[in-house]
Amino acid sequence: MSALDEIAGSAKSGTLYGIGVGPGDIRYLTLRAAGLVGAVDVIAYFAKRGLEGNARRIVDPLIKRGRDELRLEYPVTDEIPVENASYRERIADFYGSAADKIGSTLRGGRSVGLLAEGDPFFYGSFMHMWRRLEREFPVEVVPGVTGMSGCWTRANAPITWGDDVLAVLPGTLPEHTLCDRLTCCDAAVVMKVGRNLAKVRRAIASAGLMDRAIYVERGTMRDERIVPLSECDDAKGPYFSMVLIPGLGRRL
Amino acid sequence: MSALDEIAGSAKSGTLYGIGVGPGDIRYLTLRAAGLVGAVDVIAYFAKRGLEGNARRIVDPLIKRGRDELRLEYPVTDEIPVENASYRERIADFYGSAADKIGSTLRGGRSVGLLAEGDPFFYGSFMHMWRRLEREFPVEVVPGVTGMSGCWTRANAPITWGDDVLAVLPGTLPEHTLCDRLTCCDAAVVMKVGRNLAKVRRAIASAGLMDRAIYVERGTMRDERIVPLSECDDAKGPYFSMVLIPGLGRRL
Repeated sequence: MSALDEIAGSAKSGTLYGIGVGPGDIRYLTLRAAGLVGAVDVIAYFAKRGLEGNARRIVDPLIKRGRDELRLEYPVTDEIPVENASYRERIADFYGSAADKIGSTLRGGRSVGLLAEGDPFFYGSFMHMWRRLEREFPVEVVPGVTGMSGCWTRANAPITWGDDVLAVLPGTLPEHTLCDRLTCCDAAVVMKVGRNLAKVRRAIASAGLMDRAIYVERGTMRDERIVPLSECDDAKGPYFSMVLIPGLGRRL
Repeated sequence: MSALDEIAGSAKSGTLYGIGVGPGDIRYLTLRAAGLVGAVDVIAYFAKRGLEGNARRIVDPLIKRGRDELRLEYPVTDEIPVENASYRERIADFYGSAADKIGSTLRGGRSVGLLAEGDPFFYGSFMHMWRRLEREFPVEVVPGVTGMSGCWTRANAPITWGDDVLAVLPGTLPEHTLCDRLTCCDAAVVMKVGRNLAKVRRAIASAGLMDRAIYVERGTMRDERIVPLSECDDAKGPYFSMVLIPGLGRRL
């Protein structure tokens, strides 16, 4: 809050809620998340240009007509690689202006529920808003079921047993790094597979883990697809795709 | 189902529900979990001798009076190290007889909701029941918010940014293994800290990560405690304790 606002004794700021909406199936929202989706003054969400927005779609049945919404549209998503300076600059500008919009709503005394796929503090865009706003405004983060939990549930594949070490690896990493990291764990989840599917497949094959790898597309969503990775020849997958390598730890 | 049951055309088997109850705060149950806790014929749960059982305690306000319950009491928990053959034998016997009890309820046509702390397919006892029963009975697993999500939320510590690799490490591992594994990730969660706290602290110090490590006891529960690991000198922690090492990945 600015010094002027403080002196003026302006209305109390609204709270920013970071609402984890889970992996896709609306039944996997938490009680707290469902309550907040119905109660906040403004529902905010990120979306790719021209699309509905995944988090927004998940909670759609809970949003009443006429609810105020703040749509935050990425200027660019995966058309430009993240290593590209122009990508980083455009995304940082976008996050800055999105935070300004949220901040001005909060400053006006209204609460904002910013939807986050999965869990808000596990990758994802919410964290970039949080770090810009958490010093100025009251914030409550509501943890959610992660996308990976949704995927291993639907794949009927317990992921870690006993003393298994789990590695969570972004598929955006270089092939040799992926392969290295796969050799120092017992179980693994490769996230952000999408355009990296062919590379991820090669890394898993090099690490000798192809026989245990399960490919999951849109886990818990209506058009989910679950196949052994060895049976998936696609060059790339959709945004919501990951590979699971379940652990072989202690069975008691 | 036995051949005799099939011939006799007995009533349809009940369904086994593996219900993830989340990290501790009842508001972090999913809609599906809360619905099932109120609807299944029998609530089953594991508990340590003489104690209420953590999962049972979390859902207590949702359980109606007179609901049938199946309490499954561990003969031993962490009094004997898991490397000990006698421990493994006693636990395996216990799991076998617990599965028999659940199976006979299901065979009688009644549904069983087996509570699991956090997420049912992420470590934990549910998996040992699942592997014994899933071929014979219909099973539905309900993913839950993990204990680690609850902890990093309360610690106000986003765990992974950008391309961070996350390692989840059981604190039961030998010190040198913990230290090795900590050096091949960007962010880490050390689970099952409890009696291993002093060892975990040494491994984190050796890996040069003490300045980022956060110690969380009973995250999201009433008596939670969150401190920098460097300020925690305790020789051991309670069962629900973990250490978080948040990643330093890309801030956009």
